[in-house]
Amino acid sequence: MESRISTTRMQVAFGDCDPAQIVYYPNYFTWFDNGTHRLFEEVGVPWREIDMRLGVNAPIVDVQSRFFTPANWGDEIEIQSEVTCWGSRSFTVTHRIVHAEGGAAIAEGSEARVCVRRDPSIPGKITACEIPAEIRTAFGVD
Amino acid sequence: MESRISTTRMQVAFGDCDPAQIVYYPNYFTWFDNGTHRLFEEVGVPWREIDMRLGVNAPIVDVQSRFFTPANWGDEIEIQSEVTCWGSRSFTVTHRIVHAEGGAAIAEGSEARVCVRRDPSIPGKITACEIPAEIRTAFGVD
Amino acid sequence: MESRISTTRMQVAFGDCDPAQIVYYPNYFTWFDNGTHRLFEEVGVPWREIDMRLGVNAPIVDVQSRFFTPANWGDEIEIQSEVTCWGSRSFTVTHRIVHAEGGAAIAEGSEARVCVRRDPSIPGKITACEIPAEIRTAFGVD
Amino acid sequence: MESRISTTRMQVAFGDCDPAQIVYYPNYFTWFDNGTHRLFEEVGVPWREIDMRLGVNAPIVDVQSRFFTPANWGDEIEIQSEVTCWGSRSFTVTHRIVHAEGGAAIAEGSEARVCVRRDPSIPGKITACEIPAEIRTAFGVD
Repeated sequence: MESRISTTRMQVAFGDCDPAQIVYYPNYFTWFDNGTHRLFEEVGVPWREIDMRLGVNAPIVDVQSRFFTPANWGDEIEIQSEVTCWGSRSFTVTHRIVHAEGGAAIAEGSEARVCVRRDPSIPGKITACEIPAEIRTAFGVD
Repeated sequence: MESRISTTRMQVAFGDCDPAQIVYYPNYFTWFDNGTHRLFEEVGVPWREIDMRLGVNAPIVDVQSRFFTPANWGDEIEIQSEVTCWGSRSFTVTHRIVHAEGGAAIAEGSEARVCVRRDPSIPGKITACEIPAEIRTAFGVD
Repeated sequence: MESRISTTRMQVAFGDCDPAQIVYYPNYFTWFDNGTHRLFEEVGVPWREIDMRLGVNAPIVDVQSRFFTPANWGDEIEIQSEVTCWGSRSFTVTHRIVHAEGGAAIAEGSEARVCVRRDPSIPGKITACEIPAEIRTAFGVD
Repeated sequence: MESRISTTRMQVAFGDCDPAQIVYYPNYFTWFDNGTHRLFEEVGVPWREIDMRLGVNAPIVDVQSRFFTPANWGDEIEIQSEVTCWGSRSFTVTHRIVHAEGGAAIAEGSEARVCVRRDPSIPGKITACEIPAEIRTAFGVD
């Protein structure tokens, strides 16, 4: 199976930055989360459809990131997102954020996500569940 | 009827500010929205309960704000929120943000909100509706 | 002078939306602010350079928006930004956000911004000033 | 040396939550960052003063968090922040977020931060430096 990487280019906006003139660090996790959603959409299994049809979602249970060089207002950056580990109920998405020109690393992190199913009879109640078969198929995971 | 004002004090955080060292202006609208929610909760009709019990919510249809002086990282500020106009299906919440010491005005704005009811048979379908009676009662609006 | 409009297409992300399943309304102002920055960059006078070279910035003094139809997670939207009024020290940027397919209006708003110059001898002190000549030239305003 | 913990109570706002009805996870890092700033302020060495007087700041180089139970709109939560490791140039701040009632864990994470000094002659240039003596003194680190 070839690995599938979702790659997006964006420019760091004024409002992404803090008084230290660099990207406010929680924003990197917004970009990780966006990267995960784009990846699943590009592979043909957007989470909003999985959620609506199957009542299954994949919240975060563990996340980490290292930061190498700061990114500044106006920088062109690239976000690369890839599933690097498949379990039966969980999976890990790894994200690399690099300067679009030159490719210098800005941040590298990973999200561990667990599939959960809503219990329609108890509002707010969720239970861990297997990764839906159509997601495994879409990613070519046997 | 006496007017009910929700007042909250907070300190401007590092991450609320932008590279110009002042509050990033979209954050004022987050504080307006929070002020509206706190006001309804203090009066005894929190929107999350109205939403769950009646399927009624109050999205924004119009909002405006003027900004008088900037607020900076570390400033103590106060948010004052009040319903200033009741219609049959809509209402207006006015918000004032001032420096906690001295009371100098930072921002003053208003949100026009319309009550809508979800149609349980058509996901995503909403229809304008009367302001629920229990909200009018809680605010003392006849 | 022909009018210059900056147009950007984007997809509404999961994290842009709130528990009511629609775009959390303060995010529209982030998109307005981003639209203003992109417009000035496209015309050749990015604010981060104006700020660094001339110490001049253009904070918001007044902003308003109307909201017509909600936007949902996954919607393709378009942001159209244009300066609609030039004063000697201030200008107004009007933004339209529409569904990319069909063009139905989502939001329409305007930001009034005033040029200010930092006083290098007094940290935090700013004074209103004329719109820099190079901005007027870039936009073809006599 | 006794350990110093900054504890803040807050209510999860509507706008903190996502379409899955739980806190949008990047917001936890905003609360971590706010917790670090409050801790240093409570101990008497607010970063905005350290930054202005010494040109020293402490950006993130590594951050991680685990998430145990989701937090929902309206939940009362508590953020507990503490420096758990002092190096010569770096330090680690550990944050626990718990339900205010009952104390059930929501998230636990840590930020590794490195002290850097701005080079006044080269805009944007920063260099790693020792933790300022007054910070060590304020925290009682010999």
